[in-house]
Amino acid sequence: MKYVGKNVEDLNIAYIGGGSRGWAWGLMTDLAKDGQISGTVKLYDINKQAAIDNEIIGNKVNDNKEAVSKWTYKATDTIKDALVGADFVIISILPGTFDEMESDVHAPEEYGIYQSVGDTVGPGGLLRALRTIPMYVDIANSIKEYCPKAWVINYTNPMTLCVRTLYEVYPEIKAFGCCHEVFGTQKVLVKALKDIKGIEVKRQDIKVNVLGINHFTWLDKATYNGEDLFPIYREFVDKYYEEGYDEGGDKNWMNDKFTSKERVKFDLFRRYGIIAAAGDRHLAEFCPPWYLKNPETVNEWRFGLTTVEWRKNDLKERLAKSKAMVNGEKEFEFKETGEEGVILMKALLGLGDFVTNVNSPNRGQVEGIKLGAVVETNAIFSKDEIKPVVAGKLPDEVFSLVNRHVINQETILKAALTQDKDLAFRAFANDPLMTASISDARKLFDKMLKNTREYLPRWNL
Amino acid sequence: MKYVGKNVEDLNIAYIGGGSRGWAWGLMTDLAKDGQISGTVKLYDINKQAAIDNEIIGNKVNDNKEAVSKWTYKATDTIKDALVGADFVIISILPGTFDEMESDVHAPEEYGIYQSVGDTVGPGGLLRALRTIPMYVDIANSIKEYCPKAWVINYTNPMTLCVRTLYEVYPEIKAFGCCHEVFGTQKVLVKALKDIKGIEVKRQDIKVNVLGINHFTWLDKATYNGEDLFPIYREFVDKYYEEGYDEGGDKNWMNDKFTSKERVKFDLFRRYGIIAAAGDRHLAEFCPPWYLKNPETVNEWRFGLTTVEWRKNDLKERLAKSKAMVNGEKEFEFKETGEEGVILMKALLGLGDFVTNVNSPNRGQVEGIKLGAVVETNAIFSKDEIKPVVAGKLPDEVFSLVNRHVINQETILKAALTQDKDLAFRAFANDPLMTASISDARKLFDKMLKNTREYLPRWNL
Amino acid sequence: MKYVGKNVEDLNIAYIGGGSRGWAWGLMTDLAKDGQISGTVKLYDINKQAAIDNEIIGNKVNDNKEAVSKWTYKATDTIKDALVGADFVIISILPGTFDEMESDVHAPEEYGIYQSVGDTVGPGGLLRALRTIPMYVDIANSIKEYCPKAWVINYTNPMTLCVRTLYEVYPEIKAFGCCHEVFGTQKVLVKALKDIKGIEVKRQDIKVNVLGINHFTWLDKATYNGEDLFPIYREFVDKYYEEGYDEGGDKNWMNDKFTSKERVKFDLFRRYGIIAAAGDRHLAEFCPPWYLKNPETVNEWRFGLTTVEWRKNDLKERLAKSKAMVNGEKEFEFKETGEEGVILMKALLGLGDFVTNVNSPNRGQVEGIKLGAVVETNAIFSKDEIKPVVAGKLPDEVFSLVNRHVINQETILKAALTQDKDLAFRAFANDPLMTASISDARKLFDKMLKNTREYLPRWNL
Amino acid sequence: MKYVGKNVEDLNIAYIGGGSRGWAWGLMTDLAKDGQISGTVKLYDINKQAAIDNEIIGNKVNDNKEAVSKWTYKATDTIKDALVGADFVIISILPGTFDEMESDVHAPEEYGIYQSVGDTVGPGGLLRALRTIPMYVDIANSIKEYCPKAWVINYTNPMTLCVRTLYEVYPEIKAFGCCHEVFGTQKVLVKALKDIKGIEVKRQDIKVNVLGINHFTWLDKATYNGEDLFPIYREFVDKYYEEGYDEGGDKNWMNDKFTSKERVKFDLFRRYGIIAAAGDRHLAEFCPPWYLKNPETVNEWRFGLTTVEWRKNDLKERLAKSKAMVNGEKEFEFKETGEEGVILMKALLGLGDFVTNVNSPNRGQVEGIKLGAVVETNAIFSKDEIKPVVAGKLPDEVFSLVNRHVINQETILKAALTQDKDLAFRAFANDPLMTASISDARKLFDKMLKNTREYLPRWNL
Repeated sequence: MKYVGKNVEDLNIAYIGGGSRGWAWGLMTDLAKDGQISGTVKLYDINKQAAIDNEIIGNKVNDNKEAVSKWTYKATDTIKDALVGADFVIISILPGTFDEMESDVHAPEEYGIYQSVGDTVGPGGLLRALRTIPMYVDIANSIKEYCPKAWVINYTNPMTLCVRTLYEVYPEIKAFGCCHEVFGTQKVLVKALKDIKGIEVKRQDIKVNVLGINHFTWLDKATYNGEDLFPIYREFVDKYYEEGYDEGGDKNWMNDKFTSKERVKFDLFRRYGIIAAAGDRHLAEFCPPWYLKNPETVNEWRFGLTTVEWRKNDLKERLAKSKAMVNGEKEFEFKETGEEGVILMKALLGLGDFVTNVNSPNRGQVEGIKLGAVVETNAIFSKDEIKPVVAGKLPDEVFSLVNRHVINQETILKAALTQDKDLAFRAFANDPLMTASISDARKLFDKMLKNTREYLPRWNL
Repeated sequence: MKYVGKNVEDLNIAYIGGGSRGWAWGLMTDLAKDGQISGTVKLYDINKQAAIDNEIIGNKVNDNKEAVSKWTYKATDTIKDALVGADFVIISILPGTFDEMESDVHAPEEYGIYQSVGDTVGPGGLLRALRTIPMYVDIANSIKEYCPKAWVINYTNPMTLCVRTLYEVYPEIKAFGCCHEVFGTQKVLVKALKDIKGIEVKRQDIKVNVLGINHFTWLDKATYNGEDLFPIYREFVDKYYEEGYDEGGDKNWMNDKFTSKERVKFDLFRRYGIIAAAGDRHLAEFCPPWYLKNPETVNEWRFGLTTVEWRKNDLKERLAKSKAMVNGEKEFEFKETGEEGVILMKALLGLGDFVTNVNSPNRGQVEGIKLGAVVETNAIFSKDEIKPVVAGKLPDEVFSLVNRHVINQETILKAALTQDKDLAFRAFANDPLMTASISDARKLFDKMLKNTREYLPRWNL
Repeated sequence: MKYVGKNVEDLNIAYIGGGSRGWAWGLMTDLAKDGQISGTVKLYDINKQAAIDNEIIGNKVNDNKEAVSKWTYKATDTIKDALVGADFVIISILPGTFDEMESDVHAPEEYGIYQSVGDTVGPGGLLRALRTIPMYVDIANSIKEYCPKAWVINYTNPMTLCVRTLYEVYPEIKAFGCCHEVFGTQKVLVKALKDIKGIEVKRQDIKVNVLGINHFTWLDKATYNGEDLFPIYREFVDKYYEEGYDEGGDKNWMNDKFTSKERVKFDLFRRYGIIAAAGDRHLAEFCPPWYLKNPETVNEWRFGLTTVEWRKNDLKERLAKSKAMVNGEKEFEFKETGEEGVILMKALLGLGDFVTNVNSPNRGQVEGIKLGAVVETNAIFSKDEIKPVVAGKLPDEVFSLVNRHVINQETILKAALTQDKDLAFRAFANDPLMTASISDARKLFDKMLKNTREYLPRWNL
Repeated sequence: MKYVGKNVEDLNIAYIGGGSRGWAWGLMTDLAKDGQISGTVKLYDINKQAAIDNEIIGNKVNDNKEAVSKWTYKATDTIKDALVGADFVIISILPGTFDEMESDVHAPEEYGIYQSVGDTVGPGGLLRALRTIPMYVDIANSIKEYCPKAWVINYTNPMTLCVRTLYEVYPEIKAFGCCHEVFGTQKVLVKALKDIKGIEVKRQDIKVNVLGINHFTWLDKATYNGEDLFPIYREFVDKYYEEGYDEGGDKNWMNDKFTSKERVKFDLFRRYGIIAAAGDRHLAEFCPPWYLKNPETVNEWRFGLTTVEWRKNDLKERLAKSKAMVNGEKEFEFKETGEEGVILMKALLGLGDFVTNVNSPNRGQVEGIKLGAVVETNAIFSKDEIKPVVAGKLPDEVFSLVNRHVINQETILKAALTQDKDLAFRAFANDPLMTASISDARKLFDKMLKNTREYLPRWNL
């Protein structure tokens, strides 16, 4: 890369999982819309064709009249080709196929265990982690070898364990994880402010203190222009506690099917007095089965179980859309992504400091959680540096819920790195959603392991 | 007191709750059987008549041919009369009546929450704690005033919070809590050794490393004559996992109705690889409702729900027995108590060092648990001193279960000391057994508070 | 105060020690030069006449052609008058007179203990702390009563203990301490960059990671435009290690007599590999007597012992200057202060976020140092909020030097709050500069206490 | 080994450094005097002839009329021969020769740094550690390979780093370090009790709470028969503070030239209010040069600098004595050793529990010190198990002195394991005795490294 006045040219971005039909298109949009940076995006994907399709789509974006900068997209044969010379690495992969995800999400239902997403915690999140961690071991080693000084942005779930694995393998890595769930909660606060006070503001105007772990993040302070939003949120919760709030959910174009009526969030506020900052579908999975006891309970709490069938259909549509764009039958759409990835890259390039929430190893920003575990808090992004902001301490009872998962995740990491089945099962049995008896849990675990064994080549299964 | 050769005479013991028809008789037995110490036991009880009855019973014990020392029993009018001049203080009280306990144990059943004991954790344990803590505040202040250098032995439940309150109010107190649940687990190991290896030993020959909190204590090492008992226990668990072990339970005369078939203990061993060291009825209450989902589940796990009706009947029998002993219709029985209270008092008098498990503030003996919280580990008892032994660290997953209760108990203490209803409810809602919705939980909490309000005079209810 | 567009009017600032002939004039300058805020500064000083003089001088400033905002200055009779209604409180006092300072700095010389400043650590710093802490107890209580929500900026030394006392007395206080010593070290880096690379930059362009305690602060990272400055600084140190660097020191108009040739700073860099970030005169006092063994050693290290005689002369000049300004014989000078107080106030008013170093309680920003102890790190200042940035961990050997003072300062605080002479002496004897025998140390301590007893009315001396 | 009734026969002890003319003879005495254990001692020494001499001497001991058990002594050619089959391993080596020790102790004198022993901390202790640590790496690896379940007793200095290295290399090792310095302090208390109260007791009757690190250990509690000895010790200190106590010192036959008049101990008591529990010669080296400023200061404090010349002469005498015993010209003497090694072995064999002070990794027994660092506290020795007793917390100021060395020792270990000269120098420069300038310190360090380079083969010197 080179600095030219206030711009940076010849930037090299490696995109691992570059065949993505979602995140990749969002990134293309955001890059094209920014006038200060330009360069090359190398797309690597185990599905080579998907990367090639995105190369075609990406290169067409430059012709779009809304595009103010020029980016070259290039599919690569190997991860090495993508990484050598990279200034930034973006990782957004699907660990396994929807078949494995089907097992993650639905196999536990046989034992009465329901999951709304199944990609973070719970039995599904654990299995997904087991197959993701070895992939991240490889990625971390490749980055260490080919571009040790690159900044690495992770979008894959399970977010915490992906980032944690990168640091475990290569402690000097400059990696962090981005997630828009906190933004969604800021938007809920925007709605509360409008509903209760009639004031309309932007998400970015809501200042929050963020602390916790990804998808189970909490806000113990929220202000608009210096004014405490907690009393307003309390009124909002009281008003809509029973029915839920109607407009609800994250309207992000990549995510908009995943709405809820925020009742889980409201309920957690009543329990603990601070704001849970993720979508209800995620929050529910971190708790004992208060919200996920059975489909009726889920229904009462007004959020959805994201079935894998839905995902398969959704993928079909996205494949069709991709094909149409490659063929030129359909034009690339410049939607607002709401993502901050490009802003963060620019901050790290020295083009303007920025404070936002990020997933990174605990260096003291969250009191009580083991140093080195990956937590989500605010951080200052500036030239070649991310400094977490001290976020403080969770209320004791929330800490106890959160730390249980931190401990479990550390166990899962260890089990995955050493292919230790017993250790993995210990974490499996200890998840708050695991209500099955220990022998049923063992049966389920064995079955789920079997279902995903193609991605566990080093395990003795 | 005075030292006469190897004996101690004129010892002064204050017994708070001295009208007890169980622990008190056990103490009388153990004191009478010991030839090295003698003196006076002052019995204080809010039920003065019960104390007077025990005065009569106790003084008759001296005439028994098995009695080798002479003790004078004396009921007192006030707690001050009992405490002034005391060398030891024993506390064994019933906080409230069986009516309050009925609410503790059975009120939650309306919401599908079953408790096997209801005196330690769970909704019942919490309510019991709320009414016990103010009593212990008063006791601690009295000890500080009237006998600040006395050693204080607590037998009341909730053990952890009773001992914790004493130290909170009077940090220099020399107090500890005794509980025989670990002994019961040592006896299970005795049985395993006999069943698997055909070797017969005494409980005291089983050396264990004890760590955890009362009624949720764990053994991560157990040896007989230096030999590791874990492989033997594993075989024993495998042999009896499905059916449970038949002879089962603690045959202690004060406790013998409370048998189980150890299946909970076996299951926890399978989950975590270390030995849970309390009766199954207690262990079950500390976990998510794995074992207490409903009466059928309890039945499958082969342990009993101790109903308050049973307790009421049992009390009737004990009252009748007391009356008969007072009248001289029935003679005092010299049963083996299995308790170590007298041994410990002797060790503290300098009559022989002794190592056993004890509940006392964490000074580092259990890694990871907040300093000052009351934990259960081994300790060396010697002249005027108890030194906890470093017990180490619980496995991560067990730590996470245990620490959740440690955190909750600290919250309960704070709530009880400040009469903070919201704080108390936060702990109530966070108990692993609390599966009711937050609004149902609130209803239940309000009802249970109301049921026990006679013992919460300072609360604004 | 009120927000008017992008401006804030009617701001209320209370200035405790408002008769100051240094800091106060700097503040007048900085306020007058800022166009966004205006209001009233209430000057309280135990020397009422000094406050009145500053009222006159301050009000004249408005007439200056460089003044772009209007401020009203008003001397008050009581601290209450100054504080009621305050949005900000500035504290900059002289605890005691130069007579007490004479004892602080020079009395230890009789025992071969030399101090270059004597206001932070060492025997002088300790005695100064003993008389300052009770003053800060009173100030904290007044703030709690009269303006509990005001932001409080401290400039008085010993900085750490002043801020620490405010939080000890009123834990909810919104206080922090400002010190320009880190700026001075940034300027040394500016010089190094010019000397070694020929690049000229501003102090503010040097980005640093700050961690430690006031006057013994360290930089473990320093960059200019993303480039690591450590190799450059190393070269600079190697070049000037023997002779020192000539231009040297902080040219701040309030401070410019206090130059050194940075040899202490260079030596500490050689010892520990990170940059000590305060003036040499301060740094030397925190170490064993490496640099302060005797006046010859001091001379070799090329820094000065600031005598109290110098201070007395300096005060005379400032008094004359004050008189001349009051009389109108001399005009108020608009010098560059280099201070950030006004910028920080504006950030806290929401007029622009700002990151700089600050003294505030440790919430995890410095690993290993007791939570609650006052540390110096970077922080983000934004509307009504200061969030410390995670600064990380000092190298072990530096930590050990720093933490010794942290521990001592906590002891001093406790001793001052309880007037515990023995405890204070324990800290006195434990200071690294204390090379006298314990009996000589006791004699010196008694003498110094006696010399300052007028300011220790509650002590039993 | 085999258990025969209450005895253990065929015990295998490996003695590394088995040519010792001091510790080895003491062990022979203690083994011969004990009737419960018997077996073989394999003597390994890099000085094979010394081992052979001790084989001869040891085997003669059996004929002595005071010998009540039979032990076979056998010199081995390799460490492997000694270790295979060992139940216990004793390590007591001289790391290097007196030439290296001469450098350790006396080289720093050129820069005005005086050391009274030079084997634990200070420049001498550091250099000795650098050459000892690689030897202990080898020993630990050999134990891991040849007798992984043996108990390992270390007597070599620097004690802390020897034990620490064993655990670093082989974390499952069952090792501990024994030192009689605490016994010496118990004897001082015996003398105080006699002098002040006229009561005569044995050392073993003095119960103490031990906490700290080897040779800088502290007692915060000391009782005789339950009575607090602190008031008595205070009186004793006041009586003898100026002149020192005359009888003084440890009369142990291996140690009796090393007397002091306890003035350092008395002075530390006055400073901190707790009892420093090691000989004055050791204590002085851990402090800033309060007691070691120059030979005159040492003289005033009434303790000696143990010159290496003295050691050389002493060795000559011991060599002559050895020769005479081998030749049969002199008979083996059965002196009281005062050591507890044999008692501890018996406790670990299950022949009687025992509580004493021991050097072992911190598992929480000393609050505030890093877990894993080697500390000295009491522990319970029982069959195949050592459990440290919770010793609590040092007073803050003492903690600060102790922890500085803990940190330094961890740095030294790391430097020695990685042959990192800069890191080693950082610790060297940070020792409290290091008063030389950094450039002089560097010169001294380089010289001392050179002097000892024969024992640093892997270093790049």
